[in-house]
Amino acid sequence: MHSLDKVFDAQQVLKNIIRETGVVRAYGIAPECELYLKPENLQITGSFKVRGSAYKIAQLSEEEKARGVIACSAGNLAQGVALAAAKNGIKSLICLPDTAPISKVEATKGYGANVCLVEGCYDDAYQKALELRDSEGYTFVHPFDDENVIAGQGTIALEILNDLDNIDAIVVPIGGGGLISGIAYTVKQIRPSVKVYGVQAAGAPSMYNSVHDGCRECLPYVSTIADGIAVKQPGENTYELVQNYVDEIALVSDDEVASAILALIEKQKMIAEGAGATSVAAVMFDKFNLRGKRVVAVVSGGNIDVTSLSRVIDRGLLKSGRCTSLLIELIDKPGQLKDISRIIADCGGNVTGVHYEKGNTESVNGCFLRIEMETRNYEHVNLITKTLRDEGFKLV
Amino acid sequence: MHSLDKVFDAQQVLKNIIRETGVVRAYGIAPECELYLKPENLQITGSFKVRGSAYKIAQLSEEEKARGVIACSAGNLAQGVALAAAKNGIKSLICLPDTAPISKVEATKGYGANVCLVEGCYDDAYQKALELRDSEGYTFVHPFDDENVIAGQGTIALEILNDLDNIDAIVVPIGGGGLISGIAYTVKQIRPSVKVYGVQAAGAPSMYNSVHDGCRECLPYVSTIADGIAVKQPGENTYELVQNYVDEIALVSDDEVASAILALIEKQKMIAEGAGATSVAAVMFDKFNLRGKRVVAVVSGGNIDVTSLSRVIDRGLLKSGRCTSLLIELIDKPGQLKDISRIIADCGGNVTGVHYEKGNTESVNGCFLRIEMETRNYEHVNLITKTLRDEGFKLV
Repeated sequence: MHSLDKVFDAQQVLKNIIRETGVVRAYGIAPECELYLKPENLQITGSFKVRGSAYKIAQLSEEEKARGVIACSAGNLAQGVALAAAKNGIKSLICLPDTAPISKVEATKGYGANVCLVEGCYDDAYQKALELRDSEGYTFVHPFDDENVIAGQGTIALEILNDLDNIDAIVVPIGGGGLISGIAYTVKQIRPSVKVYGVQAAGAPSMYNSVHDGCRECLPYVSTIADGIAVKQPGENTYELVQNYVDEIALVSDDEVASAILALIEKQKMIAEGAGATSVAAVMFDKFNLRGKRVVAVVSGGNIDVTSLSRVIDRGLLKSGRCTSLLIELIDKPGQLKDISRIIADCGGNVTGVHYEKGNTESVNGCFLRIEMETRNYEHVNLITKTLRDEGFKLV
Repeated sequence: MHSLDKVFDAQQVLKNIIRETGVVRAYGIAPECELYLKPENLQITGSFKVRGSAYKIAQLSEEEKARGVIACSAGNLAQGVALAAAKNGIKSLICLPDTAPISKVEATKGYGANVCLVEGCYDDAYQKALELRDSEGYTFVHPFDDENVIAGQGTIALEILNDLDNIDAIVVPIGGGGLISGIAYTVKQIRPSVKVYGVQAAGAPSMYNSVHDGCRECLPYVSTIADGIAVKQPGENTYELVQNYVDEIALVSDDEVASAILALIEKQKMIAEGAGATSVAAVMFDKFNLRGKRVVAVVSGGNIDVTSLSRVIDRGLLKSGRCTSLLIELIDKPGQLKDISRIIADCGGNVTGVHYEKGNTESVNGCFLRIEMETRNYEHVNLITKTLRDEGFKLV
């Protein structure tokens, strides 16, 4: 049985554990609406997960606390549980698949957890965690389908409603549904006129499909850069709560998420992980009808691997015409690189890479020249390609 | 004549224009001290510059306001002045060199300024701005060497002292010296026991040299990724104030700055520009004696070009052993790529690029294979190179 009292209680309990992440006005990301961000990427441990975990742990009996907690995660939950357990002075054991990135394992240990590396994938680690729960008496901290976990996430709604008046809508990422369940339940009790919209990755639409089909479905596989919300099946509690309290769910593509990550970097100087940026992507790409509205997008986390971040930035730059790769067919004649370099320089392009490549050119002695360069935007790219063509070069 | 009253007055004036950027605790960046950040990268316009500009503009007479203001900048000052002028309802004209990135020009226009593109470099734009000041009657907003500008930047110190008790030190980037002058003057009036440390880029040590040599010097050239503080000569006022109120100045290298940018991304989910990260770099690389101390590093701005950011990340990854490029000399024999791929995969490396290159190999039929890959850290790189060598491959 859910209750608002539980959410208020969680707020008190969490006071000395979490950061109250104030909403910030975001300019320039979605100019048609008055957009605010709830930056849970700036939460300690880099995501909202610490809220639910810490409240769950605080509710355990002394006996349960003495036995410790166990969780299974390769991501944000691991760090949330580890920190929450440490703050409560109890033991925690996190099962991770042995394919988990070293950085996540180290971060989890750094917050004081014991780590159990399990051969295989997430499902294997999950099974191992359940075994250890049964054999060792640990309490299992579910990532989302738990009343206390959900109440903990609901504290985000209390903070938003306290920070801002006259909100029209709150947009929230959905994985298993714990975050949006807590927020939607809380908002609809206190200010039912505020719309709560959910966002899933197009490559992991478990809650979206379930709600549309009217039954809790399990996806055969999931694939998205928003790995934090790549969940195959909604929880029982969360499915129920989402059906009752969430107004609408939309899907966003990986490219939309990448654009949102890039916009948050450029406009807000803020790092979001894929999952965390889905809410912003939904607003940017107009998935709900929010023109002229006062909207809060919950940026749920910021734990993106730097190598992934580097790829996302490169993809975003490519997509917005700020870097370009041209393939030019050359005939075997001296001075061609010189001419091409001159044209590009005159147009203001900045060459960052040059490769000669053999290939199926018209002339036997021909070859291809691949030029990588930094450009301003698509118009700039078009100017350069047009000038090259006008001077007789053959672009492939 | 400086006075603390001016700084308090600026605080009142700025209330409805700027954001009060609360200090945040930074874990994991410099574990030996208790580090806090003053995130002026999250300030509107992405840097602290708006504070000084807005206070300067607010102090103008009605007649001066009616004529408008002019400034010369290709960076943070442009956006700060543009926004401050717009908020005060007055005209602003920003002179930029025509080599300024399109994105900065667009951002400046976006805040409501008129833009005058001047052929040449910064110095040409500066001369043009002075000409227009004289011919058109604009008031010139100096980037740092102005009493009101300095008082505006001083409001940062008031916020820090209000947020945190028992601070031992504040670490501040230095370009022309306006930011640190405002902070150091204010801190030393209110809590003189707090140390104020300045940081310059090793490639632009104008204030550092001037203070050490006891006279205001002008550098022949500057070169650093911290372009926001690449200033050739300190101001007259700022040189005086730094001499009187700053405890010590240190220099940081470009690589140290890149590491700090990466640490802020990974640990704080925050984007800093090079200049903004110099303070954090100084703490990370132990330039002052801050072990066990409570320290605030002022992150002065976050306006880094995404292409530069991408390069900084790549460099940071390379420097920390998280991506690697190997050059392997191959003899002309089939199946070598297969064997190398197997070894790298078995060791857990993730190949991201493969190139065959001709070159001065021992055998006439030999060639070089360049392999780019993602790795965990230096030990991981060493494991892979050792295994390759053990299996008979010749690494160059």
